[in-house]
Amino acid sequence: MSDRKMRDATLAELSDLLGDRLLTSAESCLDYAGDASPASGGRPLAVVEARTVEDVSAALKWASARQVPVSVRGAGTGLAGGACAYDGGLVISLAGMTAIREIDPADRIAVVEAGAITADIDRAAAEVGLMYAPDPASYATSTIGGNIATNAGGLRCVRYGVTRDSVAGLEVVLADGSVITTGGRTRKNTAGYDLTGVFVGSEGTLGVVTAAILRLVPRPVDEPLTFRASFPSMDALGGAVSGIMGSPVTPLVLEFMDAATIDMVESYRPAGLDRSSAGVLLGQLTGVDAEEQFAVVETAMVAAGARKVERASGERGEELLAARRLVTAAATARGPEYVCDVAVPPSRLAEMLEQVAAVAGRNGVPISVAGHAGDGNLHPSIALPDTSVETLDGAERISDEIAVAAIALGGTVTGEHGIGSLKLGLLARQLDEPTMAAHRRLKAAFDPLGILTPGRAV
Amino acid sequence: MSDRKMRDATLAELSDLLGDRLLTSAESCLDYAGDASPASGGRPLAVVEARTVEDVSAALKWASARQVPVSVRGAGTGLAGGACAYDGGLVISLAGMTAIREIDPADRIAVVEAGAITADIDRAAAEVGLMYAPDPASYATSTIGGNIATNAGGLRCVRYGVTRDSVAGLEVVLADGSVITTGGRTRKNTAGYDLTGVFVGSEGTLGVVTAAILRLVPRPVDEPLTFRASFPSMDALGGAVSGIMGSPVTPLVLEFMDAATIDMVESYRPAGLDRSSAGVLLGQLTGVDAEEQFAVVETAMVAAGARKVERASGERGEELLAARRLVTAAATARGPEYVCDVAVPPSRLAEMLEQVAAVAGRNGVPISVAGHAGDGNLHPSIALPDTSVETLDGAERISDEIAVAAIALGGTVTGEHGIGSLKLGLLARQLDEPTMAAHRRLKAAFDPLGILTPGRAV
Repeated sequence: MSDRKMRDATLAELSDLLGDRLLTSAESCLDYAGDASPASGGRPLAVVEARTVEDVSAALKWASARQVPVSVRGAGTGLAGGACAYDGGLVISLAGMTAIREIDPADRIAVVEAGAITADIDRAAAEVGLMYAPDPASYATSTIGGNIATNAGGLRCVRYGVTRDSVAGLEVVLADGSVITTGGRTRKNTAGYDLTGVFVGSEGTLGVVTAAILRLVPRPVDEPLTFRASFPSMDALGGAVSGIMGSPVTPLVLEFMDAATIDMVESYRPAGLDRSSAGVLLGQLTGVDAEEQFAVVETAMVAAGARKVERASGERGEELLAARRLVTAAATARGPEYVCDVAVPPSRLAEMLEQVAAVAGRNGVPISVAGHAGDGNLHPSIALPDTSVETLDGAERISDEIAVAAIALGGTVTGEHGIGSLKLGLLARQLDEPTMAAHRRLKAAFDPLGILTPGRAV
Repeated sequence: MSDRKMRDATLAELSDLLGDRLLTSAESCLDYAGDASPASGGRPLAVVEARTVEDVSAALKWASARQVPVSVRGAGTGLAGGACAYDGGLVISLAGMTAIREIDPADRIAVVEAGAITADIDRAAAEVGLMYAPDPASYATSTIGGNIATNAGGLRCVRYGVTRDSVAGLEVVLADGSVITTGGRTRKNTAGYDLTGVFVGSEGTLGVVTAAILRLVPRPVDEPLTFRASFPSMDALGGAVSGIMGSPVTPLVLEFMDAATIDMVESYRPAGLDRSSAGVLLGQLTGVDAEEQFAVVETAMVAAGARKVERASGERGEELLAARRLVTAAATARGPEYVCDVAVPPSRLAEMLEQVAAVAGRNGVPISVAGHAGDGNLHPSIALPDTSVETLDGAERISDEIAVAAIALGGTVTGEHGIGSLKLGLLARQLDEPTMAAHRRLKAAFDPLGILTPGRAV
């Protein structure tokens, strides 16, 4: 048989199993090839638009039998190339498994399918006074399955933790097609290993998450108190963050933008940011004692050298914070960019910002920085003249320099986006060889044939 | 060579490596044989009183080379037989590695050795206004390593989560003696797999934890508001718990005791508990809005049928809660007992209490119940006439009936004590076969020779 005929015969088997959930047209395959990162996807054989856990199981059994590489995909909003297709591979899309099966107010639990949009889950929780806390920037369009795969973060993580902290249990299809159920609905459970934690953040390399039990939290009822402060130097801003995070106050949100980001946002849509400052800190406080919390925060900011402190509640408060939410749109309007995602202990934020400035100077490129100050999670953005392969390769090298600086400060090469395909070489810079070997043991235990998202994440 | 001579020759090698950290006398071996559970320990070859990670590494290399079974031990306060010694095995004790290396207020982090006493860590954190939140009943004497091995719970877990939620990173010696470093000091980190989570709760079966990075939280500064309420039925008490946990209030502590426990405590030391009630709920609230939280809690309790609601702060508040802390001492004074440790979703608490009563009736034994109401975590205590093997076997069968009832209610066979050796058969009742197989894969990946705490936990 020719290669083409062999391929068709093989796919016919899968088509018998999956019917109209199997897409093989060139257009479909192209639609599902890439994600929201600069990584480029291959040309897959076919796409499975899964509707049930049985669809996923059938697809993985087939892929295991034929050793076909599989990529797993939600909404394709990933920023690290983790969902990109493989040449000759199979794409499993969970985007069609959108059911929010249950919201249980008594036990503060949601049971959802992997393709449910994160914001939809939060909205359903809101109807009973609860909240799904993790809110990655993409949460209006990203799926919970993608959030789980990358252990996504977000603005509210400084208060509520990351995606991992909100996942109580999972349904997972392993590489061989077997289906396991991890965790459960109890608040305490120490029976057996924490398989839930094994799969959260594993970026599709150990199994395919098809459903999840999520922990919900009481939705804050009081209007948040929003504040914004400008600083004469990033060093002063970093000092304010250390002061706040070392105080008894845990803000709901604590974000920052540097001067280049301020300029970019003000040029895109004026948001009242202080263009003469080196950086601004933006935050929200909730609780009936928000005023007392603000007094603590204001004292820390003024002591660190804050020049101008604004505060507001209600609509005006949301306006103050809106500037931060404009960063992605402003960057897109500016032109191509390469976004990094490092995190350091919050007390090292100022040093990390110095390192980013040094990298920018050394390479003669403009790098603007915004991020989640309370978590020490920075998103340096390298502005690109174009998106040629050479330009992207250059940006990747610069991004690597930033990541290496983060490691030196006790940080990590990815705070919330994942390793994916873009940061693969960096993991071994962060972890020592015995720890890398432990990663390989785990991978081999769950995916001995290496068909699941091969060559990425670990 | 005789068996004895062979043993001596083998131990001489280990003694060369470890010097005075190796104990081989019969007395030492006996001292380290058992734990605080009814499980009986074997007679080990020797005990390693580790002082450094290198000691642990040397011991495990030796044990791997000779395929000697290893048990791992902190303070020996475990309640599931997880630390019991093996006949002819090696005991690795971490009790001598007690250093609290660092308390970092800016990043809210503690770095500690595995043998540090949990209460000592909390005290060190308190000096800078922070708190190590998980507080298992044993926390004044148990080690953090033991807490990590069992993913221990405690009273404050309803607010702050279990041990797993407070562990940011680990130093672990694998079965082959290699040393890995998981996690880190950042608040976000999605680089690689969550190896930290793999080892927390793994009960010494995957590796030996020698040090940990812990997350600390701001220590509540306001005096807690303590409340106590008595109920005409356990059904009403369960309804109150559902009402509270379904409200926006998250108590710092929410405990309960049934009538038999009340009787036992009042007979031991009168604590002002309502002996005519079916059960009492005891809790604490913190925050500047504690009064408003109490109004919500009181409404929920009264709606569910609470008969008498007391509240207090300061010393009187601690007196109200002290009744709960007397349970262990009162039970010990009463005589031998067999303590169970099931958890159900909090909304199923009343049903679970009915099931426990049914098991007691069916078997004609007295079972008193107290526990962490807010977590749905119950500790039924079976009073025993003696501690003969027959009596203990009978208690184990009754405990199994309770565990099976918990599974049927969506619960778990162990909330916070671990599987150990006592509940080994129950794990397979809770998990389906593919999920059990996934446990075995994980075990084989990290301990291919099966020397680490073999035949327990999974």
